[in-house]
Amino acid sequence: MHSNEYFSTRRTIRQYDQNRPVDPTLLTGMLKAAAQAPNTGNMQIYSAIVTTDPAIKRELAPAHFNQPAATGAAAIVTFCLDLNRFNRWCRLNNADPGLDNLQGFTWGVIDTSIFAQQFCTIAELHGLGTCYLGTTTYNAETIAKVLELPMGVIPVITLAVGYPAVPGEMSERLPVEATVHAERYHTPTDDEIREYYAEKESLPASKSFVEENGKENLAQVFTDIRYPREANEKFSHVYRAFLKNQGVEI
Amino acid sequence: MHSNEYFSTRRTIRQYDQNRPVDPTLLTGMLKAAAQAPNTGNMQIYSAIVTTDPAIKRELAPAHFNQPAATGAAAIVTFCLDLNRFNRWCRLNNADPGLDNLQGFTWGVIDTSIFAQQFCTIAELHGLGTCYLGTTTYNAETIAKVLELPMGVIPVITLAVGYPAVPGEMSERLPVEATVHAERYHTPTDDEIREYYAEKESLPASKSFVEENGKENLAQVFTDIRYPREANEKFSHVYRAFLKNQGVEI
Repeated sequence: MHSNEYFSTRRTIRQYDQNRPVDPTLLTGMLKAAAQAPNTGNMQIYSAIVTTDPAIKRELAPAHFNQPAATGAAAIVTFCLDLNRFNRWCRLNNADPGLDNLQGFTWGVIDTSIFAQQFCTIAELHGLGTCYLGTTTYNAETIAKVLELPMGVIPVITLAVGYPAVPGEMSERLPVEATVHAERYHTPTDDEIREYYAEKESLPASKSFVEENGKENLAQVFTDIRYPREANEKFSHVYRAFLKNQGVEI
Repeated sequence: MHSNEYFSTRRTIRQYDQNRPVDPTLLTGMLKAAAQAPNTGNMQIYSAIVTTDPAIKRELAPAHFNQPAATGAAAIVTFCLDLNRFNRWCRLNNADPGLDNLQGFTWGVIDTSIFAQQFCTIAELHGLGTCYLGTTTYNAETIAKVLELPMGVIPVITLAVGYPAVPGEMSERLPVEATVHAERYHTPTDDEIREYYAEKESLPASKSFVEENGKENLAQVFTDIRYPREANEKFSHVYRAFLKNQGVEI
């Protein structure tokens, strides 16, 4: 497939071919290439853990709420902000590392995400399917225990990886004028906001979500069912405490 | 160029052809394709602002410490965590958005970074050169003023974009065994840490940095000159205060 076509039709794969394992050496080679993506100051404050052992994948699954994309994947790749390596190198060299704060955290999340996305693109161009599991920042502590993460290492992103069992469906996006601004930020009017979301709201899947959950509209599905404030605040507290325990105070 | 070769030889471009502008329509098209990259819950809590107007680029330059990659680029693309659109859509729909906390911030930084990196890859495969400007989280408030960012919009990443004036050089990376782990995390021994950094330390550029700055070793160049604790802590405070002012308390 030409890369132009790949990028504009990119799709998430949540069901994987159960009879086709993924060669860990292939994944390592892809991660090596992905590490050529940019990162802050070339400090490479990230790590990727490639888990293909069925027993360890089973230990990880509850941290991802046993979602099928997690339990059915040939490999689970956990991308972490990693200050352990850099901090220890500094200390071995009589140098005081100072990344255990909000700047270090933000750079680390940016660099870990860039690394993960570059891997995702390379893997998909090689015919693999991937799915970001949105559960990593909820259950970082459990993941850390299973993967034996030392001080300074913080799970940020998890990718499920495997050969696709189904072609997958393209996910709709807001019209480009909602997210891309010319020269300076364009603050939309209320009518423009309504227009940006009109197509999304009119999709049959959206209408089903609203109906099944007994809500008035799609926005309430997001705020009351999928990402309620109470849960976000609870998990913010849990993640902040975990970060502190791993040596990062934001 | 075949994409395999591109990914494993990817290079940053800091000098751009001053006689070759970049078509904003082309950039918008690339950003549209980049938005097909994954994001948390398909909430798309990000925006990209494409600045090509020389007067506005001059206003932005001090926020990037007037580095040549910023002043010489045909376009400056500022990628922001954007809760403004989502929050307003929710409020227009009698829904209470709850992303103004650490979870929302972390998802936003992840999704903004994925979006930026996908754009970076697409642009580079089209022959453009790019450079991440590591200054965005230092001077977010100045950037917000120039770009007229409303409540809820937070600069995370800035990319300089233009046609390359020079081929650029590949940046060295740590050996793959430093950043990629099999099954569970491998906590390195001190000797392994030293081995991981040995090649980086032996580079002529590294040796020059150490000598020019009168330091004992490369780690001290990072901790005393490039990313000193004092500056990181100061800018953490500044960024946290800016986030709060934009409605996000982490």
